[in-house]
Amino acid sequence: MGASLGATPNRRYAILGTGALGGFYGARLQQAGLEVHFLLRSDYEQVQQQGLTIESPEGNFMLPLVYVYRRVEEMPRCDVVVVALKSTHNYLLPALLPPVLKEAGVVLMLQNGLGLEAEVAEIVGAERVMGGLCFICSNKVGPGYIRHLDYGAITLGEYAANYQAGGVTERMSQIAQDFQRAGIPIHLAEDLLLARWRKLVWNIPFNGLSVVLDATTDALMADRHTYSLAEQLMREVAMGAKIQERAIADDFIQKMLDDTVKMKPYRTSMKIDYDEGRPLEVEAIFGNPLRAAQAADVQLPQIAMLYQQLKFLSNRAYKTPLELGMV
Amino acid sequence: MGASLGATPNRRYAILGTGALGGFYGARLQQAGLEVHFLLRSDYEQVQQQGLTIESPEGNFMLPLVYVYRRVEEMPRCDVVVVALKSTHNYLLPALLPPVLKEAGVVLMLQNGLGLEAEVAEIVGAERVMGGLCFICSNKVGPGYIRHLDYGAITLGEYAANYQAGGVTERMSQIAQDFQRAGIPIHLAEDLLLARWRKLVWNIPFNGLSVVLDATTDALMADRHTYSLAEQLMREVAMGAKIQERAIADDFIQKMLDDTVKMKPYRTSMKIDYDEGRPLEVEAIFGNPLRAAQAADVQLPQIAMLYQQLKFLSNRAYKTPLELGMV
Repeated sequence: MGASLGATPNRRYAILGTGALGGFYGARLQQAGLEVHFLLRSDYEQVQQQGLTIESPEGNFMLPLVYVYRRVEEMPRCDVVVVALKSTHNYLLPALLPPVLKEAGVVLMLQNGLGLEAEVAEIVGAERVMGGLCFICSNKVGPGYIRHLDYGAITLGEYAANYQAGGVTERMSQIAQDFQRAGIPIHLAEDLLLARWRKLVWNIPFNGLSVVLDATTDALMADRHTYSLAEQLMREVAMGAKIQERAIADDFIQKMLDDTVKMKPYRTSMKIDYDEGRPLEVEAIFGNPLRAAQAADVQLPQIAMLYQQLKFLSNRAYKTPLELGMV
Repeated sequence: MGASLGATPNRRYAILGTGALGGFYGARLQQAGLEVHFLLRSDYEQVQQQGLTIESPEGNFMLPLVYVYRRVEEMPRCDVVVVALKSTHNYLLPALLPPVLKEAGVVLMLQNGLGLEAEVAEIVGAERVMGGLCFICSNKVGPGYIRHLDYGAITLGEYAANYQAGGVTERMSQIAQDFQRAGIPIHLAEDLLLARWRKLVWNIPFNGLSVVLDATTDALMADRHTYSLAEQLMREVAMGAKIQERAIADDFIQKMLDDTVKMKPYRTSMKIDYDEGRPLEVEAIFGNPLRAAQAADVQLPQIAMLYQQLKFLSNRAYKTPLELGMV
């Protein structure tokens, strides 16, 4: 495994997807003195002319000058390629990753859901993939304009073939240093798959139910029926984790519930996507865990039902122009 | 068991709940020459003055003169007391039924859901209860104004203690004659509980999903995810039936799916209730079957989830004025 990124004191970062996540983390890295290259699509013109603007309770700032690109072929090869696209765009990765990744570099998957690193390993090799779990509230409110609301920590974990626990490597510490220099709290996970399942314990019930029931977290926790449903869904996530030989304790589930009760009323990222007419990450967050369980002949009936409900809502919301007769 | 309603050639009917169902069936019975007594609440004044108006593809008609009451104590005792209230008002039945039911009379429960006859048996005795399952599209569009849209058949079944199959009795045939005289197709079920479970096969998926996903039947059947979810929910209903020793064949489930695909786009009765801000019959249709399964230690996880989702939506929609701070 490529455990170190080499001696370069200033590691070079690529950010694929300069939105709420990629825009925020990339800007913070550049602000901290790192060399960052941003891939953009619709916001390219504006960001080239006006740079990036970050609003944050930790301090607002602007970066008038950023390296921006429309095509990966124009980008320099980077040590760390941060994938901050929505996972619904991952079909683009076979074209995006190879041109921008250094031979000894690593792809850092800052996405929600399960199994994404394994997909990327098919493209760049298992030894060049790492996962990152973001605990952050951040929105893109305009072209190149990011509003960071709260939190921001990232849990890093090495990917290894078949999601064997990768331990803590030199390159994880190197990346952690860079982010910490940028003021981003970093946790190092020895077992990426366990970290992914633990994050699903929250994401599956709250992302799913917030969309299906048009509700914020406080409303879901205030009603005893949806409180209990969230708990049952969490237990099904734990069953899924168990299939992949990862243990999620009852205590952890109880802590997630307690923490959510204490949280400020929160509109989940999937609910924001839904309300703003963007595609939902249903496959990464729901479909992949279900397929993992199915492969072991285990039923997760309530997660399956939530998946089917979300697919229905999402198919209805995002009809193509052709289906709508608008072509 | 009181198997016959006696020699009276003209049986006397009471209609408790003069809405889409009770108003329609009661008016048709009166039109056919039977003596019908209507209990009303909010529409009392208008119906007393203007009678009942029925719009129907089978012929519009008006009944300018009907027997109307505000209180059961003013009603004559009747041979057949038709309960056509929403089941959410069944807490009123201990006060409503005894004054209006003849000693040798019978209560006919024209409601959706499970276990309602057993509740009424507690009030009037098991030998004086019968169930009726209505297959009808009908709406109340104004005070005393009913719009019958389609269908109309009723399946009648005797209640016996613990839902033992009651067979076909003399009084079932007598009531069937009266309804048939009024142009209402009647089926006689030998096993009321089986008939109730069979109706739930359709009602549970489509009433539930139509509310949670804000969808008509055609949309639910056109998406393969919700088609499959409806089928799974039907299979859970069949599991529930099995607990109560009633068999629902796979063929029957397939026929329900096929028939629903062929139906005109249909907004379910629960969806209409939800859209019009009326209480939902969640306990009768979902809660009672779940409690029956729970009593036998059987999980019906997807029906349970639908129940919890509906309770959340229904609690949110029908906050009391006090909860809304409007008192």
